[in-house]
Amino acid sequence: MLNFDYYNPTHIVFGKDRLSELDQLVAKDAKVLITYGGGSVKRFGTLDKVKAALGDREVLEFGGIEPNPQFTTLMKAVEIVKSENIDFILAVGGGSVIDGTKFITQAASWDGDAEELLNFGFGGTPATNLTPFGTVLTLPATGSEMNMGAVVSHKGGKFVVMNMGAFPKFSVLDPELTFTLPETQVANGIVDTFIHTVEQYITFPVDARFQDRVAEGILQTLVEVGEQTLKNPEDYDARANLVWCATNALNGLIGAGVPQDWTTHMIGHEITAMFGIDHGKTLAIVQPAVWKIRKTQKHAKLLQYAERVWNLTEGDEDARIDAAIKKTVNFFESLGIKTKLSDYGIGADKIDLLIEGLELRGMTALSEDGTVTLDVSREILTEAL
Amino acid sequence: MLNFDYYNPTHIVFGKDRLSELDQLVAKDAKVLITYGGGSVKRFGTLDKVKAALGDREVLEFGGIEPNPQFTTLMKAVEIVKSENIDFILAVGGGSVIDGTKFITQAASWDGDAEELLNFGFGGTPATNLTPFGTVLTLPATGSEMNMGAVVSHKGGKFVVMNMGAFPKFSVLDPELTFTLPETQVANGIVDTFIHTVEQYITFPVDARFQDRVAEGILQTLVEVGEQTLKNPEDYDARANLVWCATNALNGLIGAGVPQDWTTHMIGHEITAMFGIDHGKTLAIVQPAVWKIRKTQKHAKLLQYAERVWNLTEGDEDARIDAAIKKTVNFFESLGIKTKLSDYGIGADKIDLLIEGLELRGMTALSEDGTVTLDVSREILTEAL
Repeated sequence: MLNFDYYNPTHIVFGKDRLSELDQLVAKDAKVLITYGGGSVKRFGTLDKVKAALGDREVLEFGGIEPNPQFTTLMKAVEIVKSENIDFILAVGGGSVIDGTKFITQAASWDGDAEELLNFGFGGTPATNLTPFGTVLTLPATGSEMNMGAVVSHKGGKFVVMNMGAFPKFSVLDPELTFTLPETQVANGIVDTFIHTVEQYITFPVDARFQDRVAEGILQTLVEVGEQTLKNPEDYDARANLVWCATNALNGLIGAGVPQDWTTHMIGHEITAMFGIDHGKTLAIVQPAVWKIRKTQKHAKLLQYAERVWNLTEGDEDARIDAAIKKTVNFFESLGIKTKLSDYGIGADKIDLLIEGLELRGMTALSEDGTVTLDVSREILTEAL
Repeated sequence: MLNFDYYNPTHIVFGKDRLSELDQLVAKDAKVLITYGGGSVKRFGTLDKVKAALGDREVLEFGGIEPNPQFTTLMKAVEIVKSENIDFILAVGGGSVIDGTKFITQAASWDGDAEELLNFGFGGTPATNLTPFGTVLTLPATGSEMNMGAVVSHKGGKFVVMNMGAFPKFSVLDPELTFTLPETQVANGIVDTFIHTVEQYITFPVDARFQDRVAEGILQTLVEVGEQTLKNPEDYDARANLVWCATNALNGLIGAGVPQDWTTHMIGHEITAMFGIDHGKTLAIVQPAVWKIRKTQKHAKLLQYAERVWNLTEGDEDARIDAAIKKTVNFFESLGIKTKLSDYGIGADKIDLLIEGLELRGMTALSEDGTVTLDVSREILTEAL
């Protein structure tokens, strides 16, 4: 097992009918800014319930945070936080709204040019004294509700923004608030959770048995409840299991003490940035190709994955690994998610463009051992055609 | 899945050679009280390393916290915290030292009679403004290093003492610090971890798939590394897996959103209080008997346990459950832990005394559904003879 630090102070408030507890979770005298995305939290009444729970507090609203939240949009909210002396921000939405809110609170406390905050990556920004924030989650996918990371889009690129002070103070996870999600967003969320898990699991073995078992538990659960929660969105337990898995897939638990490989996310970000394909859908394209191209490096963990997640225990090892990759692809497709670039009309002629994007953002030594060069990324993208 | 709150702000500092980081983890100007137990932390040099890492800080020591820490012992440390204006307490030891330190910090901040703090049980004490504390763990077993609960002994009874402010600020978990433990303490710790896990797992199903998989992952890991880490105490990875499992077995993760049954612990506490048998050893006596007597109520989860932890998938369901209980007993005995009261010379004539103790402490409606009355506890103890 590798050395690690694990720290996660977010208070999770999970279950049915928990929204009314916002009254206890937010300070009585706080001036609150509610951040949200499109109209769905209005249309389905979540925003009204949140405001009702906040009672007499002075509440301002900032809507319109888009999927893949844009720096320029978020800066408008930063102005409000500063000019209105906001005490508490409440993000109501999915990963984009929560990620955006993490950036808002950092930029609002930052005296310099906020664009600088995009350049610190996994090392974390130096912003301090962040305005505290909580979340009401409406989309299980990114895990942002229980971590301190965000991804912000700017000038055609995606930027990782982290800060140890940017954990939500609390996150209300009521699975019923997600029942009204469109099927495609639920499917994207299942894939996103699946890929978060395998990017911290399918690398090379370091004898981290607890972490492996937890990762496998998330994957097994997703396979068990994936189709069920798509077909029966109001099946509470199926959705509750998805929501809790999505949170645990990226709260630091399964990644503690193990190597990680974020190649699929990094290449996926380029595809989203250039072609506007949903984040989750890009992951389903890239991940199987990564495994095929990196089968040697990932042999031991792919074999473990085949055995423990897909119960493939007999026959030639390579054949088992191939079967596990095939089962993964079939699982994504059973959720209505395509798994090839060509399914989106993207041909070999676009690969140069994607490679240029990776180069521009310094993504030239990806993976658990830094050996996914631009040439390897080209192989991966070619495999994904 | 049941509704739940999950909150755990302890910073885990895990791995080799982490003790020197105490210098960053404790405030530079803090006046520190180090709490510890017997002489082993002195004998094996851990205390010296801790003091070296604390550098120029003013450091006081309080040793002699015994296994099953006594109220009267702990109150002597409370006096020091108060009279010396201690800013930070550093517990160096296992569960007893850490539990004791949690009580010390609560009692030191409590204006009333400290004995009152023993009476709040799982509801939590009303003590506030606790002196912050951290831990350096030397014994993987109780999980106390990442939770806010303690058990304190007083006048022949054991009392649960909880407080939301009593999470350690940090816990340094260096598996190498546990290499010098006597074999029997390691074996006790393995059993303690195992029982913590099953008391949150083997109840009745509520479709909490993630929690079940994590619990099963801990149990599988303990079965895999148990004998190995006893026989080869300096096998780093085996010990690291035990340490991290012990922490995760009682940090709230596997118990979130599921029923819990602490019958085995409660009956075990009586056996320890009356006969002085190690905590872990009492659990290995009681748990198999609980399962045998409560086979009907726990049928579904015992069957799942048989299948997923012990790979018992064929034949009659009751036979599979019996086989799983037998395998559990064999596992404890493979660690050198006895599993019957009679192994300790305790006969049927002592059961009345134990039942009186349970009654005295109000343990008259135990288990996940409150139906383990004193009569059922008597059946369990008779089965355990």
